[in-house]
Amino acid sequence: MTQLNTEIISVGTELLLGHITNTDARDISEMLSKIGINVKYHTVVGDNPERLRACVETAKRRADILITTGGLGPTCDDLTKQVLAEAFGLRLIRNEDEMKGLYDYIHNSPHFTPNNFSQAMLPEGCTVFHNRWGTAPGCAFRAEGKTVLMLPGPPVECVPMFRTYGVPYLRALSDEEIVSHSVRIFGIGESAVDDLFAGEMNAMVNPSMAPYAKECDCLLQITAKAKSEAEAKAMIQPVVAHVKERLGEWVYGMDIECLEEAVLPMLLERGLTFAATESCTGGESAKGVTAIPGASAASVGGAVAYTHEAKARILGLDPAMIEEKGAGSDEVARALSEHVRGLTGADIGIGVTGLAGPDGDGVHEVGTVFVSMAVEGRTYVRALHMGKKRTRSFIRRMSGNHAFDMMRRWMLGLEVEIII
Amino acid sequence: MTQLNTEIISVGTELLLGHITNTDARDISEMLSKIGINVKYHTVVGDNPERLRACVETAKRRADILITTGGLGPTCDDLTKQVLAEAFGLRLIRNEDEMKGLYDYIHNSPHFTPNNFSQAMLPEGCTVFHNRWGTAPGCAFRAEGKTVLMLPGPPVECVPMFRTYGVPYLRALSDEEIVSHSVRIFGIGESAVDDLFAGEMNAMVNPSMAPYAKECDCLLQITAKAKSEAEAKAMIQPVVAHVKERLGEWVYGMDIECLEEAVLPMLLERGLTFAATESCTGGESAKGVTAIPGASAASVGGAVAYTHEAKARILGLDPAMIEEKGAGSDEVARALSEHVRGLTGADIGIGVTGLAGPDGDGVHEVGTVFVSMAVEGRTYVRALHMGKKRTRSFIRRMSGNHAFDMMRRWMLGLEVEIII
Repeated sequence: MTQLNTEIISVGTELLLGHITNTDARDISEMLSKIGINVKYHTVVGDNPERLRACVETAKRRADILITTGGLGPTCDDLTKQVLAEAFGLRLIRNEDEMKGLYDYIHNSPHFTPNNFSQAMLPEGCTVFHNRWGTAPGCAFRAEGKTVLMLPGPPVECVPMFRTYGVPYLRALSDEEIVSHSVRIFGIGESAVDDLFAGEMNAMVNPSMAPYAKECDCLLQITAKAKSEAEAKAMIQPVVAHVKERLGEWVYGMDIECLEEAVLPMLLERGLTFAATESCTGGESAKGVTAIPGASAASVGGAVAYTHEAKARILGLDPAMIEEKGAGSDEVARALSEHVRGLTGADIGIGVTGLAGPDGDGVHEVGTVFVSMAVEGRTYVRALHMGKKRTRSFIRRMSGNHAFDMMRRWMLGLEVEIII
Repeated sequence: MTQLNTEIISVGTELLLGHITNTDARDISEMLSKIGINVKYHTVVGDNPERLRACVETAKRRADILITTGGLGPTCDDLTKQVLAEAFGLRLIRNEDEMKGLYDYIHNSPHFTPNNFSQAMLPEGCTVFHNRWGTAPGCAFRAEGKTVLMLPGPPVECVPMFRTYGVPYLRALSDEEIVSHSVRIFGIGESAVDDLFAGEMNAMVNPSMAPYAKECDCLLQITAKAKSEAEAKAMIQPVVAHVKERLGEWVYGMDIECLEEAVLPMLLERGLTFAATESCTGGESAKGVTAIPGASAASVGGAVAYTHEAKARILGLDPAMIEEKGAGSDEVARALSEHVRGLTGADIGIGVTGLAGPDGDGVHEVGTVFVSMAVEGRTYVRALHMGKKRTRSFIRRMSGNHAFDMMRRWMLGLEVEIII
């Protein structure tokens, strides 16, 4: 297959006003990169037929696959469908199945108005993507040598629709099979990974290999293309094995998105539970640890204690010790992890405390966070020096990652108190 | 001033791979909309000089102001600066101030390499935006009737640089002053606001008025343009007063971003503290309440209790009551708010519990969340029916908003247990 270039056109004035973020383009791009389809452009344009028309003309010149998000449904007069059908010389025809679906919906919704039926008008000959997550159907067609997919804008509809219908539709266009794996790495950065593999990476075409930085960790994406899936798998397997051996303990998983996805199954397998508590980091540092989605399977709960009094009353810490050592200290982190473990009866206690700034405590530098883990009678601490320039969101995620990395390394019998 | 149209061009292959989200374009757009500058397009293109060149040519045809993000700095050979300077026929000249700054930086960083000095090469005659948040400087210039601004890609550098340098630079281009206010509304939706003001809104040009939906609330943006700020203020004032009177108690604030920004000063003014606890909502519902940035000023802390045992051990709830009523119940919400208040000694206790799904408890519908507030011997509860289709993030934010709205309404002497 010759390489198919893709442009994602997102339609919506609210994107241009900065009221919402274009997560649809990111999520679609991520899914496409996993099936080896290149995205070359994202375009955002407002709810304006003339400007959308011009953007579609530009996209027809520079891309093979056009994917639109938004501009479907009655509130914008089905702008996107009108413009795209016209751009490819197609009529809009009433789809009886979708019409019936809309009739059924009308009886259940007080907000349905007659112009909602325009949603059942779809380009002639298209493949209909029925919307189980909302009302406006999506669709796909091929015309003038291009492939066009249209999806609704709300992420709760767009993302599952693209995963359910869009990915298989686009895969079927190709006579090649793609197998791609992401090796996830925590503890060394993208540039160090780049240095380690630079020589061989540059010489590799198929399979290909590239490092990418995420917010608080990094990954190596390894991709192989072949006539059959079995052939692509056979090509990629030795490369993955080589990379994993070379990176050793820094690899926390494959084809997952974050450390907790690796650590939770390890906890469940061993029948271990954890509880976490945070303090005085502006309420941010351990949000990732105390309330990670999915973590509830192994987490019994936790606490947030901003004030000295709350630390004493909820967790039973000694107020004099907090006063003496400073709330953002090694000692308070240790006490938090030990006390939350005792209070909840969890196997592992996690304590996070530090100075998120802007004010310091006169002892520790702003951006310093202590992550502590109490387990089987021993308490481990990592001191993280993240600097003043980091965002709250970075500090929160990074502290959470360290907590999970400490659990991971302890379960694997690796050294826990390493400096990263 | 004739209307200046803006295009934001974001440069970065990682955006096209879906590894990061284009929050820069959103944040810049939001700041521009507040100073009355229209954004007409967002474009994302990879680290590729030829494709970037073509995108810049398109932007020159359709926009007056071009703002680039990303593609500065040594890892991409200062791609954006090279291409933009060339597109406008400008040479890159070494800036001695920036050069000196880089020399100073080199002594403090182990990762600095000689090619970092290319960052001091800037388009001739440009206004330099010194980067206090990173190393690559940004800049602005006017050429061929266009205004060009270049900013680094990382959001922690891009956003403060645009706020500090970009906004004043662009404001100075205009001979009109713009005054804009956003009236924030919680409890009625965008379409209801639209209905209320539809007649007058369509007839208004200057001041203008438009409703916008945010994830869990909505706003009315009112904007006036005039020769002087005083004149614009005089024009906008009666419109704001009229809108506030018409919307009454649904208005929670003006020119703020969320309910907690309105409620925290009210708590502080009255010397009140709160503590929050959540349970069994997949660890998501009350994340917003237990750990809101800035909330620490009035919040003493809180707890997260997933398991029945944790609810009993941390908060002292009666296990038999939880078993009987179901963890996602009115009764458990009440008990959580009352117990967290008692445990922490806070003036107000907040409890959030519910069924985030996918599994129900056989009694309550998935998507049902109970938000409870215990204060001065009385406990209030709101039952929220958000449906199965909502994301975890929506459920979390919405539950948090309701908790803050209940505090707000109680402090103002309004009815608390309203159905929204």
